[in-house]
Amino acid sequence: MQIAVDAAGGDFAPGNIVSGALVAARHLGFGLTLVGSQSELEQELVRHPDAARVPIVIVDTPDCIEMAEAPAVGLRRKPKASIIKAAEVVASGEAVGFFSAGNTGATFLAARTVFGMLPGVDRPALATTIPTLTRGAVLLDAGANLECRPTHLAQFAVMGRLYARMALDVSEPSVGLLSIGEEETKGNELTREAHRLLRETVDSFIGNVEARDVYTGKADVIVCDGFTGNISLKISEGLVEVIEKLLKEELNQTFSSSVGFLLSRRAFRRFHRRVDYSEYGGAPLLGVGGLCAVGHGSSSPKAVRNALAMTYRCAKQGFVQRVREEVSKYRSTESSDVDRKC
Amino acid sequence: MQIAVDAAGGDFAPGNIVSGALVAARHLGFGLTLVGSQSELEQELVRHPDAARVPIVIVDTPDCIEMAEAPAVGLRRKPKASIIKAAEVVASGEAVGFFSAGNTGATFLAARTVFGMLPGVDRPALATTIPTLTRGAVLLDAGANLECRPTHLAQFAVMGRLYARMALDVSEPSVGLLSIGEEETKGNELTREAHRLLRETVDSFIGNVEARDVYTGKADVIVCDGFTGNISLKISEGLVEVIEKLLKEELNQTFSSSVGFLLSRRAFRRFHRRVDYSEYGGAPLLGVGGLCAVGHGSSSPKAVRNALAMTYRCAKQGFVQRVREEVSKYRSTESSDVDRKC
Repeated sequence: MQIAVDAAGGDFAPGNIVSGALVAARHLGFGLTLVGSQSELEQELVRHPDAARVPIVIVDTPDCIEMAEAPAVGLRRKPKASIIKAAEVVASGEAVGFFSAGNTGATFLAARTVFGMLPGVDRPALATTIPTLTRGAVLLDAGANLECRPTHLAQFAVMGRLYARMALDVSEPSVGLLSIGEEETKGNELTREAHRLLRETVDSFIGNVEARDVYTGKADVIVCDGFTGNISLKISEGLVEVIEKLLKEELNQTFSSSVGFLLSRRAFRRFHRRVDYSEYGGAPLLGVGGLCAVGHGSSSPKAVRNALAMTYRCAKQGFVQRVREEVSKYRSTESSDVDRKC
Repeated sequence: MQIAVDAAGGDFAPGNIVSGALVAARHLGFGLTLVGSQSELEQELVRHPDAARVPIVIVDTPDCIEMAEAPAVGLRRKPKASIIKAAEVVASGEAVGFFSAGNTGATFLAARTVFGMLPGVDRPALATTIPTLTRGAVLLDAGANLECRPTHLAQFAVMGRLYARMALDVSEPSVGLLSIGEEETKGNELTREAHRLLRETVDSFIGNVEARDVYTGKADVIVCDGFTGNISLKISEGLVEVIEKLLKEELNQTFSSSVGFLLSRRAFRRFHRRVDYSEYGGAPLLGVGGLCAVGHGSSSPKAVRNALAMTYRCAKQGFVQRVREEVSKYRSTESSDVDRKC
């Protein structure tokens, strides 16, 4: 089994990408199709003597969509960009899925253009796994669609439940709608209308989830539009960084608190792992006709390793095919619901 | 100077409300107009022997809009509810402003109905002060308007700057638009359009601010629609609680880390103060024709005290009148901008 990796995308490409991918591939026993500049990649691989134990194919392309480049313009100008090539390798069957930590908008567009959408899914959604007080949760959409309609959120819920089964190992994941206030009348136009639709058509829908309950683990799957999802995740990332910084400042101010910090260092390290986003690595783009995993631009080797482990798991379980089936089941339930009402 | 207090509103009314209000009033030297059930309030005041030193007026009303009650329905059914009475006391000149930790939607509606809107402001906005790595920031709208148009965000920016001058003590506060990505082309329809309008009409506009930069202090004033603002604040509150819980769990696991925790206890306490939302207490509702401060339903006495201190400061500085003038200046700039373009 080969997994394609956009080795040119991301703030620390190809270094972090290659080193994280190699660890995952060696550990789980799959091959890598590295897409990027052949000469750069060969140079990079020299640094990893253990690379010889991994089946590696290099797809040579000099072009890459830069992080700040406008996705549509970039892809038009560079039809041989690494992100397009990576998707094409999957579409042609040479790899089972691809990962990119590059320009996220370009990744969405490449996956959508090359794979097409699954029947019954109007928009793809990025599904992130977040830490909670319990077993974690899946939040989607994390930023693939900034303007959503209620039907999009219902489709996200169906796909998100399926992903949560695998990612969180829960048989019947509960679904919550991110909104203001728990009552169904609370929220904006989108959430009020989506609440009604979710209640009527989606299994295990528990109603609105307030933002303050996102991290308590009240729902296994949290659905929202991509603008709200992206803001929620980014504000959390920023806040965690600020809290760590403030806490370190405070703990370095007096002798006794510095000693306290030293004595509790292991606890801090364990704590860090529990709130560390890189533990969760990549987020799959759900709803497209092929397996695509998206990573943070600043992905560490560990984040890349975890994202590829997730991609491997999805591939082994035939995840895209399962989404296809689940969505088609949902469509027939939804239309029979509509039929009943007519 | 009298400040009116909805003594019946909030999860811990009248206890927390009265005790926090008394501390502020005694410390700053203003009088309190307590609105609620006279018998309950008299009972409560008995517990505070120092209350005798504060000029207190009680406005007796048995009705209160419950926290979960639908605002419009509640106000229609209970025209003598404490929140309405509190606003009326201000409108009649018997108090300079009012504070409520009760049903937020009902507070917005009462203020808007009793005070009316300032000329040139289409929608009120709730302005919260948040802690940052630097001097703090003002985020608005925190939830008064869930559906916003670009012009609303521009009006929020003008009012928010004025409030930030006072709350953060900055002479020329910078304004950022909360969005996804720093480029003006990034975001949803609302933010893209608002970006253009803010750039053309609002002083010290620094462009889009990504959610991860909200707490770093990149902008003094952060504008967004009320849905996004409320979700951002609530998710942050939830996250801070979860982080504290996780950290305590970790620090209690081994003997050395428990000792570490004890040694660093003072640092933790100081840190807690820096991220503690109750430090910032209340949020003023900007854009209405009178002074209205809104508190968290679960406000502690300290939060109530700080909210009333803020209300007092606003009243002393003639804040509502200054907003009126600033908005009218903005209106004439904006229309001359439009004239120039015609």
